Amino acid sequence: MMLVNGRPAETIDARDRGLAYGDGVFRTLRVEAGEPLWWRDHAAKLAADCAALALACPDPQALLAEVNAVAGQGDCVVKLIVTRGTGARGYAPPEGPVTRIVMAAPVPAHGLPGAPTDIAARTCTLRLARQPRLAGVKHLNRLENVLARAEWRDPEIFEGLLCDDTGMLVGGTMSNLLWMKDGELRTPDQSASGVAGVALARLLRAAPRLGIPARFERQPPAAILDADEIMICNSLIGVRRVAQLDGTVLPDAGWRARLNDALYENLD
Amino acid sequence: MMLVNGRPAETIDARDRGLAYGDGVFRTLRVEAGEPLWWRDHAAKLAADCAALALACPDPQALLAEVNAVAGQGDCVVKLIVTRGTGARGYAPPEGPVTRIVMAAPVPAHGLPGAPTDIAARTCTLRLARQPRLAGVKHLNRLENVLARAEWRDPEIFEGLLCDDTGMLVGGTMSNLLWMKDGELRTPDQSASGVAGVALARLLRAAPRLGIPARFERQPPAAILDADEIMICNSLIGVRRVAQLDGTVLPDAGWRARLNDALYENLD
Repeated sequence: MMLVNGRPAETIDARDRGLAYGDGVFRTLRVEAGEPLWWRDHAAKLAADCAALALACPDPQALLAEVNAVAGQGDCVVKLIVTRGTGARGYAPPEGPVTRIVMAAPVPAHGLPGAPTDIAARTCTLRLARQPRLAGVKHLNRLENVLARAEWRDPEIFEGLLCDDTGMLVGGTMSNLLWMKDGELRTPDQSASGVAGVALARLLRAAPRLGIPARFERQPPAAILDADEIMICNSLIGVRRVAQLDGTVLPDAGWRARLNDALYENLD
Repeated sequence: MMLVNGRPAETIDARDRGLAYGDGVFRTLRVEAGEPLWWRDHAAKLAADCAALALACPDPQALLAEVNAVAGQGDCVVKLIVTRGTGARGYAPPEGPVTRIVMAAPVPAHGLPGAPTDIAARTCTLRLARQPRLAGVKHLNRLENVLARAEWRDPEIFEGLLCDDTGMLVGGTMSNLLWMKDGELRTPDQSASGVAGVALARLLRAAPRLGIPARFERQPPAAILDADEIMICNSLIGVRRVAQLDGTVLPDAGWRARLNDALYENLD
């Protein structure tokens, strides 16, 4: 089911600036037994991302009602898009209302409870551009992710890791990257590229409770191969262990289950 | 009037990847008395841009028929969008057909024959990221242009000039930049950022016939202030002279009319 500006619909105006310019932001969230997971985090991140683009963020209570309406009582994945709405030709932002799209889809196989907790990853050839004005924001300009994901078809490869144009790690095409080393949680600096996901934010918030120091680092892929454990995370898959990177078998130090448990605790 | 995949429509599927990821390309072209200007150039550029994204480019003859259908017999601006179509959730490119959208709009006031040939411009604060994989391509990831255009509301300012993150000029938010100096046509290097427009390509093709050497340069804004004449161009406005940049009055050496005339000559 799908709602466009609160009304059941499957289409949007072809003049929408979300299509014309990618002028908008989105969220992907998991719903279990009709309950959107981490709603407060998603609503806060949506508001922050809208603010980054000077978009008027829809009322979170109204959005939650729409999420509930499309999700029903079962398990699903909800995607939420906010665009700057329909505008005249040209880049100048219009004054009109934003467009909001709320759609539900079945949980994909890789997001189901029985999916493997260990995954294989590759390092992508594409280098992310550095744009501090858009870094961290989950906006609709995702061609870099599309090009990176098109680099492989091997279904055994679950994720591709991305570096910026200085060769420093940023994250995965659809996940955030983290690794444990010397008892510390480390994750790439994303001040110039990448998407700062809600799952990663929750892990960083949980770390102090677990007594784990956390920090942002600028490291090339080769520098993390001696980590105690490399992981990825997002709102759909939780925490997964990177068991192989470019064919290199990586160590398992038991961190994944511990961090994954922390991710699903009540962190409000 | 608008055609979506050849059928009259005003909407597209809300799951289209053009909306989800900006996964597509576009063209803006001028139609005069029912005749699309520079069609061969636009069709060639569309094919090149589709190839850059590994998109299947629609047949140019079929597209031209659709352009003619939406344009009718008068003057208008036609926008043509090609996206990777509707896909499942996730960045991996689907195998299905592309989406093509052809829409006509009235010529805006600044594109009408009587519009001023001299314009005022400003230098934008936003710095363009450098992404060689996407440079030159007129793709649907245009948030940088949106953010740059949002920097001013003064209707006297017609265009904003953009630099990359090394401070070197790239072009305008909706136009290409060129300047004449020592009898040479110069335009910013766009190998890492910007859109390589059809109007600029035509001018570069016309230059040898006019006996004008042309070259790409990496220059900061301050370095072009001593040019004989600074201009911008695109398919809608032709060549306009930049008469003021950030309040500085710039010289008029009579190049604009000459280059504009060359632009509209038969260059096939």
